[in-house]
Amino acid sequence: MRAARRAALRDLLREDGLDALLVTDLLNIRYLTGFTGSNAALLLHAEGDADTVFCTDGRYTTQAAAEVPDLERVLDRASAGALVSRAATTPARYGRTGFESQYVSVEQHRTLTGRAGDVELRRAPGLVERLRLVKDETEIDALRRACAAADRALAELIEHGGLRPGRTEREVARDLESRMLDHGSEEPSFTSIVAAGANSAIPHHRPTGALLAAGDFVKLDFGATVDGYHSDMTRTLVLGPPADWQREVYELVRLAQSAGREAVRPGADVAGVDRAARDVIVGAGRGEEFSHGLGHGVGLQIHEAPSLAATGAGTLSAGMAVTVEPGVYLAGRGGVRIEDTLVVREGTPELLTLTSKELVVV
Amino acid sequence: MRAARRAALRDLLREDGLDALLVTDLLNIRYLTGFTGSNAALLLHAEGDADTVFCTDGRYTTQAAAEVPDLERVLDRASAGALVSRAATTPARYGRTGFESQYVSVEQHRTLTGRAGDVELRRAPGLVERLRLVKDETEIDALRRACAAADRALAELIEHGGLRPGRTEREVARDLESRMLDHGSEEPSFTSIVAAGANSAIPHHRPTGALLAAGDFVKLDFGATVDGYHSDMTRTLVLGPPADWQREVYELVRLAQSAGREAVRPGADVAGVDRAARDVIVGAGRGEEFSHGLGHGVGLQIHEAPSLAATGAGTLSAGMAVTVEPGVYLAGRGGVRIEDTLVVREGTPELLTLTSKELVVV
Repeated sequence: MRAARRAALRDLLREDGLDALLVTDLLNIRYLTGFTGSNAALLLHAEGDADTVFCTDGRYTTQAAAEVPDLERVLDRASAGALVSRAATTPARYGRTGFESQYVSVEQHRTLTGRAGDVELRRAPGLVERLRLVKDETEIDALRRACAAADRALAELIEHGGLRPGRTEREVARDLESRMLDHGSEEPSFTSIVAAGANSAIPHHRPTGALLAAGDFVKLDFGATVDGYHSDMTRTLVLGPPADWQREVYELVRLAQSAGREAVRPGADVAGVDRAARDVIVGAGRGEEFSHGLGHGVGLQIHEAPSLAATGAGTLSAGMAVTVEPGVYLAGRGGVRIEDTLVVREGTPELLTLTSKELVVV
Repeated sequence: MRAARRAALRDLLREDGLDALLVTDLLNIRYLTGFTGSNAALLLHAEGDADTVFCTDGRYTTQAAAEVPDLERVLDRASAGALVSRAATTPARYGRTGFESQYVSVEQHRTLTGRAGDVELRRAPGLVERLRLVKDETEIDALRRACAAADRALAELIEHGGLRPGRTEREVARDLESRMLDHGSEEPSFTSIVAAGANSAIPHHRPTGALLAAGDFVKLDFGATVDGYHSDMTRTLVLGPPADWQREVYELVRLAQSAGREAVRPGADVAGVDRAARDVIVGAGRGEEFSHGLGHGVGLQIHEAPSLAATGAGTLSAGMAVTVEPGVYLAGRGGVRIEDTLVVREGTPELLTLTSKELVVV
């Protein structure tokens, strides 16, 4: 499976006239090799794995042998530099070597150039990211398990009375994160958002010592990580019988989210998907109160391409994993966001976050 | 206090003949302004705060006003680019503007150059980091509180029987992290290491489902974060009466750690501090089993300059915060590391991690 990813990358190298690619981003290295340590570089040759070399340092000797058994491995603390020095010894084979210019700093570039000899280091931004846009089934399975851990954690939290007046936002966040760990999450996908009452109107509120109170909206935006893949889900609940304005806002966001999900299909323009959900909210006169994009890609990063936003460009393809997360925020009163992680499929998208989107009253 | 840091940075700009510095690293921005959001840039003019501009995007309007009340603020998503465009409108004032070339990627540099007009963007790596090497008392106070949170968490863990045969390494790590949160930690400083039995011989072992067992060494390497500042402490305990080899290894590491701490003083060569501890272990014939450097600086980053290692260069100054953490690892049997965070002071260093270093039997 990783060999297939490397083969796909080679097609891109050939299109760009590159003999090799120096991969230095650790997530891209993980994607291509399975390595999970904190120092590595990969010199991927366009001709095949036989000419491809992986480098890490002595702390990871055993781990690299276990995680990257199928590639030549060298140990050197100056991982990227060491691989460039090695390429420089056979410039005929590495004449045009691409590097990840969106990550390599100006100083690193100077160091690498100093080692490159007759090898020409060429800017080659975003090649592995192009592959990562469309997930393979191994990746989708990891996303599915991450979403399941989040689903279960939220179900348990509610079942065990974890959402109740008198608890602080911070306590709820810790409880939720602890339950995700119980269900196989390696770590929280990002800083969990737990926002009660008027705080729910702040799109990216961080949990505070504020107390949950009867009548509050409680907005929970959180995720789990499995095999490095992130889930992302938001639900908004209400503590006790909802007021009319809460029902109205909730129903509006629920309809917009449904319209957004329905627009997710192969070939759909990303700005058009945003519009499908946004039109519902604008039509209700609340366009100003939906102040962010509709969604984003999710995978080894919590936020990655594509961006489902009015300013986004491009179209969806089967196998992309995206979030759909409209919100309406009434400053000083409260807000609602409903978010799912889903996979673009022929026909209907595959929903990975399975928690109900009916208004839950706890 | 932040104004004093900016004034100190201006001295460095003048030494380097720079009219201004474009600061893009978020930790450096936090250090200089107090801003804690996820998108920002700072254009610091050598002549003073009146010509200095801070930029973030619309999500942070309120937060920036609260955290950075003392500087002109502009809102633009393309923060660094926006500030360069602005500088380009008055090139006479920003003729030579430095940028953080150790962080700015080759692609970002192209974008910034495209906006710079007649402003010359000059490589200026590591200027703010030079200031950050020596902590001011506000920073030391945050480090002290972070270390206290870790001390208290470990004391409670032991007191409440949290270290006992039958628990998994992962359960212990979560318990410890939860207790640090109780004592004011914002988040774990890094992925906690809990390593039991033979796993304690792996220097950077990650917690697994392995069970703690009677007779095991349990090595705990963990830290808290307060106001963004990290603590770092390692203690190694034994579950039940220690075997002779455990007493011997423990005592050796304890002596080496003490020798290392005693060598920490203003003017000391960093390689010499490493040597002071290492000589104790080498003298006992265990030099091969101490496979890493002695310590590192700690502050807004968990690992920062200076490096206390044989390969390190430079000398210590009063106000630097460093760790001293020798270890001896017997593969397949178990290992001991003892680590403190301390501040270099005239005379004796100030110990921030106060947990006892006697061999604790639980």
